[in-house]
Amino acid sequence: MPFHHTVTVRFSEVDGAGIAYFSRVFEYCHAAYEELLRAGDVPLQRLLAEESWVLPLVHAEADFKRPLRLGDRVRVEVAVSRLGRTSVHYAYRLVGEEGTTRATAELVHAFIDKESQRPRPIPESFAAALGRLGLLPE
Amino acid sequence: MPFHHTVTVRFSEVDGAGIAYFSRVFEYCHAAYEELLRAGDVPLQRLLAEESWVLPLVHAEADFKRPLRLGDRVRVEVAVSRLGRTSVHYAYRLVGEEGTTRATAELVHAFIDKESQRPRPIPESFAAALGRLGLLPE
Amino acid sequence: MPFHHTVTVRFSEVDGAGIAYFSRVFEYCHAAYEELLRAGDVPLQRLLAEESWVLPLVHAEADFKRPLRLGDRVRVEVAVSRLGRTSVHYAYRLVGEEGTTRATAELVHAFIDKESQRPRPIPESFAAALGRLGLLPE
Amino acid sequence: MPFHHTVTVRFSEVDGAGIAYFSRVFEYCHAAYEELLRAGDVPLQRLLAEESWVLPLVHAEADFKRPLRLGDRVRVEVAVSRLGRTSVHYAYRLVGEEGTTRATAELVHAFIDKESQRPRPIPESFAAALGRLGLLPE
Repeated sequence: MPFHHTVTVRFSEVDGAGIAYFSRVFEYCHAAYEELLRAGDVPLQRLLAEESWVLPLVHAEADFKRPLRLGDRVRVEVAVSRLGRTSVHYAYRLVGEEGTTRATAELVHAFIDKESQRPRPIPESFAAALGRLGLLPE
Repeated sequence: MPFHHTVTVRFSEVDGAGIAYFSRVFEYCHAAYEELLRAGDVPLQRLLAEESWVLPLVHAEADFKRPLRLGDRVRVEVAVSRLGRTSVHYAYRLVGEEGTTRATAELVHAFIDKESQRPRPIPESFAAALGRLGLLPE
Repeated sequence: MPFHHTVTVRFSEVDGAGIAYFSRVFEYCHAAYEELLRAGDVPLQRLLAEESWVLPLVHAEADFKRPLRLGDRVRVEVAVSRLGRTSVHYAYRLVGEEGTTRATAELVHAFIDKESQRPRPIPESFAAALGRLGLLPE
Repeated sequence: MPFHHTVTVRFSEVDGAGIAYFSRVFEYCHAAYEELLRAGDVPLQRLLAEESWVLPLVHAEADFKRPLRLGDRVRVEVAVSRLGRTSVHYAYRLVGEEGTTRATAELVHAFIDKESQRPRPIPESFAAALGRLGLLPE
């Protein structure tokens, strides 16, 4: 996968059964996504402040395969699995240091015009950033 | 829907765009699920401490339809959408005070034997609790 | 204490040692504070949107006396412990159903003018709300 | 300060006012503490699993000086500010990339015997780890 970011499972994230609470997986994916945007020179804080559009989540799903435990270093891999006209589908894979897949996830972001609050096509500057990161098919 | 629980969107849960961070939806669903277990006289804290099995999440998904905003009172409705041999699928609907659906979600829990770490059939005592709550088809 | 709000310790909030992660205590206090503002007819979402000032935390402290466990119903009591010229000190006590104090906390909020970003005296409308709730000395 | 760890302010941690929710500061401090324990070869996951004692928080406090914003890289510095007979006081300083202090915090951990649930002296192996990290006065 062309982009990855490593997170560590923290004590605040581990639940009463001793493993990362299920929805932390989504937080780990979004952390990787924030690093991806930064690496593509379109950091989220700038997009939120300066652009005429926002890119909210419209769908999220995950499959939990093996537990993520306190202290685990987890490699979060990101790929673009589908480029719609007004949305991007990101596929995530969370991999433990031993190489096994702990969870997979898909997050779908829409592009919404701030003014009209309606979907809009993927901004060219954003697609260009994904391209620079090698996340788009050639 | 036979069971519901109301949550309030807190300041700690609202993100930089002013709406509940997407994965809070899963936390709200799980809070409703914890209340459901309590109402069914099988509170999660007792299950974790006393039973020979656990019931981890194996799949989670959500569709985000309208924003959840700071201070919103949100009714989380729960139904059993599918009863497998070794798993239960719960369908959730999050409804604002004005009656519109803000999000829907599905969470799938497997039953795992603590000793063998393998899937096991739904325990009768657990199915009975779901039945008492009116969550199973007659 | 003149104001109280009850929270339930959730699975997402319980750490690997089986008790609420320490800083959840601050989230519980802030949830009670949000309910207090709502009860005083100055809900936080309205203050943030409409006022010329904000009321950020400048200090927080807590003493953890007894564990808060999964499923516990915890009564969060709030009092105003000190009214400064440009700040309010809130004292919190978290009490279990059996009546023992689980934790105490103090949170200090300053009033900051949005425009100048400098401290400003407590707005009269805000002091009036605290008065209506019986939180100010007569 | 002898130990430091860098965190990044995430979208999930930023509140409706656009800055890190106040109690995230405590989570950032604890993340640094977890890295400190790992660096001292006494990782928290091992302590929790293997030792006859636990080291819960008994007191936490923080002063919030300047906002932590989405995307900020924050250096969390840790020092031992006081070594009691049955507790350790850690002093934290959170520093932005521009070098200004954003927040300071103090976290006090007690050593509790698992069996008796009573305070116990600082374990020698733990003090040795702090010593190896240069966190104890010579």
